[in-house]
Amino acid sequence: MSLLVVGTVAFDAIETPFGKTDKIIGGAATYASLAASYFTQNINMVSVVGDDFPAETIQQFNDHGIHTDGLQVKKGEKSFFWAGKYHNDMNTRDTLATELNVLMTFDPVIPQSYQDCTFLMLGNLMPAIQMQVIERLHNRPKLVVLDTMNFWMETAMDDLMKVIKMTDVLTINDAEARQLSGEYSLVKAAQKILKMGPKYLIIKKGEHGALLFNSEQVFFAPALPLEEVFDPTGAGDTFAGGFIGYLARTKDISFENMKRGIIFGSAMASFCVEKFGTERIMNLEQDEVDERVQEFVDLVQFDITLV
Amino acid sequence: MSLLVVGTVAFDAIETPFGKTDKIIGGAATYASLAASYFTQNINMVSVVGDDFPAETIQQFNDHGIHTDGLQVKKGEKSFFWAGKYHNDMNTRDTLATELNVLMTFDPVIPQSYQDCTFLMLGNLMPAIQMQVIERLHNRPKLVVLDTMNFWMETAMDDLMKVIKMTDVLTINDAEARQLSGEYSLVKAAQKILKMGPKYLIIKKGEHGALLFNSEQVFFAPALPLEEVFDPTGAGDTFAGGFIGYLARTKDISFENMKRGIIFGSAMASFCVEKFGTERIMNLEQDEVDERVQEFVDLVQFDITLV
Repeated sequence: MSLLVVGTVAFDAIETPFGKTDKIIGGAATYASLAASYFTQNINMVSVVGDDFPAETIQQFNDHGIHTDGLQVKKGEKSFFWAGKYHNDMNTRDTLATELNVLMTFDPVIPQSYQDCTFLMLGNLMPAIQMQVIERLHNRPKLVVLDTMNFWMETAMDDLMKVIKMTDVLTINDAEARQLSGEYSLVKAAQKILKMGPKYLIIKKGEHGALLFNSEQVFFAPALPLEEVFDPTGAGDTFAGGFIGYLARTKDISFENMKRGIIFGSAMASFCVEKFGTERIMNLEQDEVDERVQEFVDLVQFDITLV
Repeated sequence: MSLLVVGTVAFDAIETPFGKTDKIIGGAATYASLAASYFTQNINMVSVVGDDFPAETIQQFNDHGIHTDGLQVKKGEKSFFWAGKYHNDMNTRDTLATELNVLMTFDPVIPQSYQDCTFLMLGNLMPAIQMQVIERLHNRPKLVVLDTMNFWMETAMDDLMKVIKMTDVLTINDAEARQLSGEYSLVKAAQKILKMGPKYLIIKKGEHGALLFNSEQVFFAPALPLEEVFDPTGAGDTFAGGFIGYLARTKDISFENMKRGIIFGSAMASFCVEKFGTERIMNLEQDEVDERVQEFVDLVQFDITLV
């Protein structure tokens, strides 16, 4: 029983209305693995970095119970780098630089020790690589969660549709759900997307929360109203990592348990945005996680008895 | 024990991506009174119309248990008229026409039979008129709910601040909360606004739900994800009417009960947007209201036991 997390491990340079960073640690697999590590222990990472990537960070992954046998370190090459600047509303951003570097030739290797994978988190990556990972696993995982983005809808739609068909839970944001379905109404968009293959769809709406759909039910979890959103980078990956980490811990993939997973994922995301990069989710205490989840309970719970 | 609703009773002409209306019935007091009528019976309306306003509509108000002794009908004058066009996202709109007509000289009269007012809903109007209504009541109501808009922040800020100070619950949208407080973060905005006088603040976020704040607590209610939002006109007033109508029925103004009020208000607003104008909320069955509230329960309820 293990959780496999596949995605980028990278450098980011981030500018927000609150400040600016030099190159800091980022990447979808980084955020997702760290978030999952607060819920489950047997986490395996598949990714690629250059030899510019700090060994101390890999050690920090290991300290969080994240195995890095599948994290390839390419000699003489550079890690993936992304630079972006958020607008004042913190909901939109401009990409200032994207240097693919090692990602250009990424060929995911699944170590033998990873083959007991029961939960698979496919972070945002080229759809063809996401598909390769599924194909290279000897047994199909119990649950495959796929994250993707608008860029692949524009440049690799055929591959994307194939890999979406192979997944159980698709996570995208509201604009991407509209783009993928051609429907403005998120309810109609969800109905269309669920017909493309996935049994569950999570639509992430950033500060406006997240929706979970299956063909018959819908659940909504708000984002926690925060005094300050400092840096939204990685919030979606952190959400997904908390979600699948909770499912992996409880081994229950019912709709009811996915609701709880979404609350735990939202709690992790609410930490993520409080500081730059991975700073906040690198060093959380279990008590803090529990308190934050309780804040979500308090935020939405009400008691109505209909006569 | 009665609920007094003050606000416009008017004609609207509405254009949305789904269609266009001629002059139809609108106005804040119209929507709020109708919504409240599904929860409480002793509703008194204060407003003004011209003699172009249909007697059948006034009869419909009465049929909903809404008393219209305080609805002045001005001979030879025309009712307030607003025309607007919604953009494709349905969240923004252009005003095409505003004809104040009878509103220009509106002097609110409180009939003696209305003086037992315990719940007061002040719909969006000139702040000076909202204040006059409070002053013309012999006893201060148990709860005063005030709705306002950005226009008064720009043109009548002094009067607005005075009337805000006299209210218990202020309802505004997210952009207005930011404008009134000068804070982007809604949490910080709420803290500042609560220092201006009101004990409770409701921030309406349209399709993204509503937040209820007091100085120590926060509660969030989502909007129901709908297949189609047909016409958002009046949704905020309908929400407020459902909210105060529920409080008037239960006579309980605790934070816990306000949470329930917000759920009932949100349920009423979700009906409002399904058709043009007042069409949907003019003819609801109690069963439909109960079913809709149950949908809200199903949408957000989850069960987490923290160990």
